[in-house]
Parts: sequence; structure tokens; C-alpha cells
Amino acid sequence: MTDPAKPVPAAPRFAHVAIVGKYQAPGSRHVVDEVAHFLHDEGCDVSLELETAQNTGLTQYTALDVASIGQHCDLALVVGGDGTMLGIGRRLARFGVPLVGINQGRLGFITDIPLNGYRERLQPILHGHYEEDHRALMAASVWRDGRCVFEATALNDVVVNRGGVASMIELRVEVDGHFVANQRADGLIIASPTGSTAYALSAGGPLLHPTIGGWVMVPIAPHTLSNRPVVLPSDSEIAVEIVSGKDASANFDMQTLTSLLHGDRIVVRRSPHALRLLHPVGWSYFDTLRMKLHWNEGA
Amino acid sequence: MTDPAKPVPAAPRFAHVAIVGKYQAPGSRHVVDEVAHFLHDEGCDVSLELETAQNTGLTQYTALDVASIGQHCDLALVVGGDGTMLGIGRRLARFGVPLVGINQGRLGFITDIPLNGYRERLQPILHGHYEEDHRALMAASVWRDGRCVFEATALNDVVVNRGGVASMIELRVEVDGHFVANQRADGLIIASPTGSTAYALSAGGPLLHPTIGGWVMVPIAPHTLSNRPVVLPSDSEIAVEIVSGKDASANFDMQTLTSLLHGDRIVVRRSPHALRLLHPVGWSYFDTLRMKLHWNEGA
Amino acid sequence: MTDPAKPVPAAPRFAHVAIVGKYQAPGSRHVVDEVAHFLHDEGCDVSLELETAQNTGLTQYTALDVASIGQHCDLALVVGGDGTMLGIGRRLARFGVPLVGINQGRLGFITDIPLNGYRERLQPILHGHYEEDHRALMAASVWRDGRCVFEATALNDVVVNRGGVASMIELRVEVDGHFVANQRADGLIIASPTGSTAYALSAGGPLLHPTIGGWVMVPIAPHTLSNRPVVLPSDSEIAVEIVSGKDASANFDMQTLTSLLHGDRIVVRRSPHALRLLHPVGWSYFDTLRMKLHWNEGA
Amino acid sequence: MTDPAKPVPAAPRFAHVAIVGKYQAPGSRHVVDEVAHFLHDEGCDVSLELETAQNTGLTQYTALDVASIGQHCDLALVVGGDGTMLGIGRRLARFGVPLVGINQGRLGFITDIPLNGYRERLQPILHGHYEEDHRALMAASVWRDGRCVFEATALNDVVVNRGGVASMIELRVEVDGHFVANQRADGLIIASPTGSTAYALSAGGPLLHPTIGGWVMVPIAPHTLSNRPVVLPSDSEIAVEIVSGKDASANFDMQTLTSLLHGDRIVVRRSPHALRLLHPVGWSYFDTLRMKLHWNEGA
Repeated sequence: MTDPAKPVPAAPRFAHVAIVGKYQAPGSRHVVDEVAHFLHDEGCDVSLELETAQNTGLTQYTALDVASIGQHCDLALVVGGDGTMLGIGRRLARFGVPLVGINQGRLGFITDIPLNGYRERLQPILHGHYEEDHRALMAASVWRDGRCVFEATALNDVVVNRGGVASMIELRVEVDGHFVANQRADGLIIASPTGSTAYALSAGGPLLHPTIGGWVMVPIAPHTLSNRPVVLPSDSEIAVEIVSGKDASANFDMQTLTSLLHGDRIVVRRSPHALRLLHPVGWSYFDTLRMKLHWNEGA
Repeated sequence: MTDPAKPVPAAPRFAHVAIVGKYQAPGSRHVVDEVAHFLHDEGCDVSLELETAQNTGLTQYTALDVASIGQHCDLALVVGGDGTMLGIGRRLARFGVPLVGINQGRLGFITDIPLNGYRERLQPILHGHYEEDHRALMAASVWRDGRCVFEATALNDVVVNRGGVASMIELRVEVDGHFVANQRADGLIIASPTGSTAYALSAGGPLLHPTIGGWVMVPIAPHTLSNRPVVLPSDSEIAVEIVSGKDASANFDMQTLTSLLHGDRIVVRRSPHALRLLHPVGWSYFDTLRMKLHWNEGA
Repeated sequence: MTDPAKPVPAAPRFAHVAIVGKYQAPGSRHVVDEVAHFLHDEGCDVSLELETAQNTGLTQYTALDVASIGQHCDLALVVGGDGTMLGIGRRLARFGVPLVGINQGRLGFITDIPLNGYRERLQPILHGHYEEDHRALMAASVWRDGRCVFEATALNDVVVNRGGVASMIELRVEVDGHFVANQRADGLIIASPTGSTAYALSAGGPLLHPTIGGWVMVPIAPHTLSNRPVVLPSDSEIAVEIVSGKDASANFDMQTLTSLLHGDRIVVRRSPHALRLLHPVGWSYFDTLRMKLHWNEGA
Repeated sequence: MTDPAKPVPAAPRFAHVAIVGKYQAPGSRHVVDEVAHFLHDEGCDVSLELETAQNTGLTQYTALDVASIGQHCDLALVVGGDGTMLGIGRRLARFGVPLVGINQGRLGFITDIPLNGYRERLQPILHGHYEEDHRALMAASVWRDGRCVFEATALNDVVVNRGGVASMIELRVEVDGHFVANQRADGLIIASPTGSTAYALSAGGPLLHPTIGGWVMVPIAPHTLSNRPVVLPSDSEIAVEIVSGKDASANFDMQTLTSLLHGDRIVVRRSPHALRLLHPVGWSYFDTLRMKLHWNEGA
């Protein structure tokens, strides 16, 4: 399938690349196939993430599950949006495999290569010219009667919520065993720098630069007006205990644990692993912020 | 029961007074009995709201249901907190019976006579010396497939909410048939001036003076940062349609309608009735705000 | 100058129209001339506001000062932006002359006819087909030692500010003689519904629909976190007294009074006059909000 | 001066202690004298900061200027409030001398030993039992035409402001040479974790735990609603350039530079020195926050 007239490219920096398509999205066969060809032409071995292979029906590439990608691949190329990147990134982090994102629609906060013209931006990355950007992950657990009943990793945020028809929830917050406050609110968000541009922002939180070693704790519609967002060190242990309120639930990125009981404790620590994102040379976090938040568009 | 040595008081301005005790709170027998004696000594006929009579076990006063209070009484005296006042006030509004509130605990926004020393403040009111303060009520309805499936009156707010474990809800807002915006958020609050000090305040809304002819619409954690609170005229018709989102519910003060469907429309108009609150002469709305919001306490 | 082949138009609803060009902006001769021809063709008598005549150098139309426009014209056509409209609108309000705005650049909140294609939108208005939209004006005065030392009318807002290099200012606020609060802040904004989309919005205030009979009082960076924006009835008298702080100043739309002294009182009432804005049929305030605030542009 | 009947105390951990009285406050002679006696009884050599010696008229202790305190003392004991601590702390930081604060009035964020009963809390600290809390300092400079025209250290914040009677200022922000945004606002605050409870909080910023390696940049009344607070790494270089606006000034804690020109650049870096604060064992930052912000006081 390679053109014999083309010069043989130098061996790529990333020999084996896995393509990960849009989460739960059948279709996109054409795009994934196209990108796979490009990678092949660049001298890469190409595999497809298992579900992506199934969704696209492409059979000429090895299909690998996430663990196998983690063990065997040098790079994961996400063709989708921020949601897809969050999903796969969280699971690949412990393998140390870097990720890069091509966005088919509107550019995302972390998938910043547009599909239209992706070749010019991706090629230098494949050959070792890139900016690397590490994103901290949250290791969360839920404790009931002294036993851990749930564990999850989150890249964006851990959210403790009241039930849908209930009134406020009361939460007791501790940091490294120090009492912080009892908060009465609709809920409480603990967001990473990556998640600071998501739900936490809607709830009134600040933006956190990715290199900040902290999480931002943002109450949702807090009863006490001075319960403002607090940026806490990410090397601390944050514990949120359900004091009162019905049908509370906890949400870890896309994973939800419902029916929390009074006394349940949601504990957040920093994961030993981090997401490794690669960006084209010249990439700036601030360019992304400015574009996504429509700064400097006049008024 | 009157002391023959006491001078006969002038006939009170409010001849027949109903006492309403704390909502769903057994006990408080002593306090209600004491207040009833005081009213009797002031020359009032005294009745007890039915549930209050049952909760306290006091049998020497006529027990009246809300409709009978509305038809026969000249004043309702609430011995409880803001919640009790909200509950009974909403139901008495259509009868035009004025209310006055004695607060057993911490003073409320609308129950502003402290139990301790209530006699000196209540007596002049009973004899016609008071400030009258009208609070607009919201007449809300829910429409499905062109039919009204729910109706309720609210004194504080009408809230449309996402489900407890769902992500954002999308709501289409119209005012008098004009499209306002599609809002993606955790929910949307439409609050009266009375409700502007409650949930709407927690969600970032402004305070509305009780004489303002408007409702404030406050999105809860809106996705679009410029979706700010808007004060809308209360003589308009506000319609909120469920566009997307799971397990949405609507809340009208304490009354909840769950399982809203896409296309359901929550419609808010101003009720033809208003709550009539009486306060001691010299009462000021701003004194209440200042005390409740801890303004001017130094820092 | 009329084309004899053209049918004679019906007599316009507004027989005498004054054109007001962009404030302090020389140039724009071509645009004003073009609009003047159009009005003439529609059967209107055309005058130019005095400064507009000077700035454009157009001499074939009568030049009128603002008072003469107020006495003799039936409509003022503003060719500029919101700032121009604010300036002239404030001064024409007492004459009851309606205004309509053509915007040369980006559409404004109150100048909502785009220059490009203005004819189709303006023509029906000239012939009596329009939506009328009244905007309340603020009558402000400054009192020192019992004497009025300054008076001004404002359409957007009255702002009391600390000096540029000073720390916080302390202001005592009263409404109809009732003490509201002493506020320590960078300043305090009292904004009309029209001004609620301007500075007050930046400082955290809500949007007020133009028909709301209120002003919103918004503290700027208040020391006390519960000093939230308050919507006050516009038929009240709001007084703001300088308690402490150096080099305080007051700002009434574009007019500034500096060197305020401790004890000076800035008093705001509703002006007996209102701005009469005309819009094309089908105009909706909410369409303007949605466009200007970039609601519903996806994200 | 020691009582021969008293047991000789162990040699204190801090042999030479300087007392620093309230900034620009004559009086307080009695309190300073009392504290000096106590220190002496604990076995410390006692000196007075020069201005404190002058203000109190106490002559029996050596008076030392700040540099001499830095060179010769082991501990500075501030008897005043947060303002006094800020002033002296900023100047002592480069000497590495730790500070401890006794507050005569309402407890501060960083002066957390109440005068009433200070002995029991101070004694263990003197003998080596304390919590140490480091606060980052900002090294700020102002550059004009490529030359540094001003340098200052700030513990709370660096603020760039519009003039008192001017309208908005426009500021260009860069971080490590990367363009962030042009902000139009009343001003811009760059606050340290210590300063995050001060002006930045009033302007809508989050709280930053003292161990967070970041500054929070908070725009004051920004024109663009999505210009939200951003937490930036403190090991970066933040540059703020005056793009437009009249009479801009910059403020570094209590030090002000007025008459900034267009093109002037305010540059903020982390100082190599940090403030060393000592607290009683068991001290928790969160206890201070909770008390100062009135969390958990019911409502």
C-alpha cells in the first residue's frame, strides 16, 4: 500500500502506534482507516484498540485491548474528542504510554490536532518533535464501615452529589486528617487541573494550570456564601464524608456509585501515574484556554 | 382565665386568630398554649390549626383546617420558622388572611418576632399597629402533550433539576413566547423576591426587594459562563421545556414532581393572590437582610 | 433629489427626523449622507444634530442642537453605537422624542439595526410599524453639607469609586431613609436595566429585563462576601454616603465628579422621563441578549 | 528582673528574640513591656525593633533596625495584626528569621496567638515545639523601555489598577513568554496563597493552600465574562503589560507605583526567600480559614 516512489521515511520515534476511535461511536471507519494508512506510511506498526476495531469493522490491523496497548504500544493516537481521551487516558496512564489526540469536531482542551490537516502536525510528533504535558490523575476510593467498597481513577473530577429530588446534602471535609468544614450544598467537586475547565468551572471554580500540584475543591450552590473554592495540595489526602442527605452519589469522571450512606467516606489521593499528553511543538496551554473560553474575541 | 384585676383591653383589630405551630413537629405544646393564653387575654378568639391541635394535644381551642382558617379567621399567627410560614402562607394566600410569625429559634427572613419577648411586639400588631408586606406567589403548572398534568403554588421558587446521577440537563426557556436560550446546566431556579434569599442565592443569584415585580431566573452550574441570572417581569409567562437529560424533576417549594419527560413544559405565572405578612412598626426589610447575611459584623 | 420614476411614498409616521452621528467621531460623512437621502426619499424632513453636521461637513440639511431636536423633531435616528445612543438618548428623554439606532459596527444592546441592509428594517418603522421599548433613567444628585452640588441623568449607571491608588472605600447605603449596610469595597454600582448589561455585569450583577421597575446595586470587590447584588425598587430613593476612603469619585454614565468628601451623599431617584427606543417589528430583547452574550453558540 | 524563687527555665530554642510592635502605632507600651518581661523570664535575650522602641518609649532593651534583627535575632515576635506581620515579614524573609504573631484584636490569618493567654501558647514555641509554615514571596519588578524602574517584594499580592476616574484598563498577560490574553478590566490581581484570603477573595478568586506552588491571577470586574481566575505556577514568570488606559498604577502589598505608561511591564517571579511562620503545635490552616470565613456557624 506504500508508494514505492516515496522516499523511505526515517524510523519513527514511536514504532508501534495504537489508534483509539471515538468512544461508543460506530462509524468513523473511513477516518480511522485513513489515519492508519498515514501511520503505516510513516513507518509505524499500527494496531487498533479492540472496541475501535469492532466499531469500524477494520480487520487488517491487530486489535488490542487496553492492557495490551499498554504493554506493547509506544503511542496511543486518539481520534475523537476530549471524552474519548479521558476514557482511554485514564486507563493507559499506569503503563506510561503517551497519548496524542486528533479531534474530528470542535477542538478540545486536550485533543488539539484538527482532523483537517492532521498530517503536518502529527508527522513531527511521530518523529520525536513534540511538547510533553503531564496531567495528574486522582486515585479515589469509597470507604464504608472501615472497608473499601469502591475504587476508581479520575482525570477530571470526583463529584459528590445530592439525590435528584432531595434537598441539600451535608458533607464533612477533612484534609490529611484536619477538619476543614461541614458543607451544606448540592454537592462538592474535587477537580484536577484537567478537570478545572469542566464541571468545576461551571460551578464557579478557577482554572488550574496543569503543572499546579493541587486539586480545586468547589462546592455546588453552597448554603454558606463564604464556602468558596479552595485549591488543596494534591499530595494530601482529602476525605469527604456523607453527614446527611438522601440518595447521595459519587461520580468519578464517567463512573458513578449511587446510594451512598451516611458515614461513607470518599477519599481522594494523587495517583502515582500521570497522563502523558503529546502536543505539536509550539503548543501552549494558554492558546487552548484562550480559544476554548473565547477570550479576546472582542465584544 | 382572664385576670379580673386586669383592665379590659380594647377590642383587637384581629378578632379571631388562628395559631399555626411548627410543621410536622410534635411537642411545642407549652409554647402554643402560652401564646394562646396571651391572645385570649388580648381579647381575641383563638383557634388552632388542625395539625397543630393534634401535635400539641391542646383541646380547649377550636381546631380548624386551613380552608376554615381562611374563611373564619382574621389573622394567622405562625409559631415556628420560615418553613412553617412558607407552608401555611402559600395555602392561606387565596383567602387574604394576613400572617405574622413568631420564631422559636434563630430569626428567619419572614418570621421576625423572637419568642423571647414576643408580647411587646405582638400586642401592637393585634391592635392595628403594624407594617404590611406583600409577597408575590408563583402559580406553576406542568404541561405534557398539551395537557396540564400538575399545578402548584410556590412562594420561594420553582426549580427544574437534573436527576441525581445524570449529567447536565438541557432546558429551553421562553418568556411570553419569545425564545430566551437553551441552557445546559444542573438545573434552573425561578425564584420570587422571597425565594431570592434561599436556594437562588446559593446558586449565585441577586437579592430582590419584595416590592420588585419580578422573578429571578438562576441557572445552576451552567455550562455557558455567560448564562447569568436574569430578572424577568413577574407579569410575564415563563416556560421551561425539558430538551434533554434523564430523570429531570421539578420542585415547587416543598412539592416535587419527578420523572419529567422530554417536551414537558413547566410554566410559571404570577398568582393572583399574594402573601400578606405583618411586621412590627419600624420593621425594615433591610434590617432583616443585614442580620441574616451577617453584613456589618466587622471582619 | 427624488427619483421621479419612483412611486410617491405614503406620508411617514415620523415627519421630521434628526440624524445623530457617532459621538466625537469626525468622518462618517458618506454614511450619514446616504441615510439622509434615504429618509428624504421616504418623505421625511431631515435635520442633522449640530455636532454631526460639523463632523460630517454636510451643509444641505438644517443643523439643530439637542434642545431644538427635542422641540421640533419626531424621531432621532442614531448612526453609531450604544455609546452614541446613551449620550443623545439621555438628553432627548425629557422631550419624549423616540430614538432608533443604526449600528455601523458590531450590533449593540440598544442600537440594533445593522447598517448593511438598514433600509428594509427602517422603512416600516418610519411608517409606523415598530416595537416600542421604554428605558428608565436615573436622576442622580450629590449633596454636601445639605446642599446639592451636582446633578446628572444616567441611563446606564451611577458608580461610586475609590481613588486609583487608594485602598477600599467605605460607603453607607440607605434606601428611603432605611439603613441598608456599610459596604467596604472598591466601589458601588447602581445600574438601571439598561446598564445591567454593562459595568454591573462585569462586577457580578444579574441582567434586568427593561420592564423591571428596579435598579441593581452591585458592590465592586466587596470585603464582605455576603454583600451580594441587590435589586431595589426604582421608585425608592437610594442614598450612598462616603464614610471613608481617599479620592472617591462618582460617575454618571460618562460624567464624572471627582474629589468627593467624607459625608457627601450621592442620591439616586428615577427620572420622570424615560428613553423611548423603537425597534423593528419582531424585535425581542432576548434575541439581543442571546447574541451579545454568545448564548447558544455551542461549546 | 527574674524571680529567684522561680525554677530556672531550660535554655530556649530561640535565644535572641526581637519584638515588633504594631505598625505606625504609638502606644501599646504596656503590652510590649509585658511581653518583653515574659520573654526575659523564659531566658531569652530581648531586643525591640527600632520603630517599636521609639513608639513605646521603652529604653531598657536594645533597639535594632530590621537588618540587625535579621542578622542577630533567632525569632521575631510580632505584637500586632496581619498588616504588621506582612510589613516586617516581607523584610525579614531574606534573613531566614522565623516569625510568630500575637494578635491584640481579632485573630488574623497569620497572627494567630491571642494576646489573652499568649503565655501558654508562646512558651512551647520558644522551647522548640511548634508547627512551621512557609509562605512564598513574590519578587516583582516594573520595566520601562527595557530598564527596570522599580523593584519590590510582596507577600500578599501584586495589583495593577486603572486610575480612579478612568474607565477600563487593558492589560496583556504573558506567562514564560507565552501570550495568555489581553484583559480589559478594572485591574488584575496576582496573589500568593497568603494573599488569596485578601483582596483576591473579594474579587472572586479561590483560596490557595499555603503549600500550593502557585499564584492566582484574578481580574477585577473583567469585561469578558469567561476571564475567570487562573492559578499559575509560581516558578513561572508572569508579565503584565499596560496596553491602554489612563493613570494605571501598580501595588505591591503596601507599596504603590503610580503613573504607569503604556508599554510598562510588571513582572512577577517567586522570591528565593520565603516567610517562615511559627504556630503552636496543633495549629491547622483550616481552623484559621473556618474561623475567619465564618464557616460552620449555622445559618
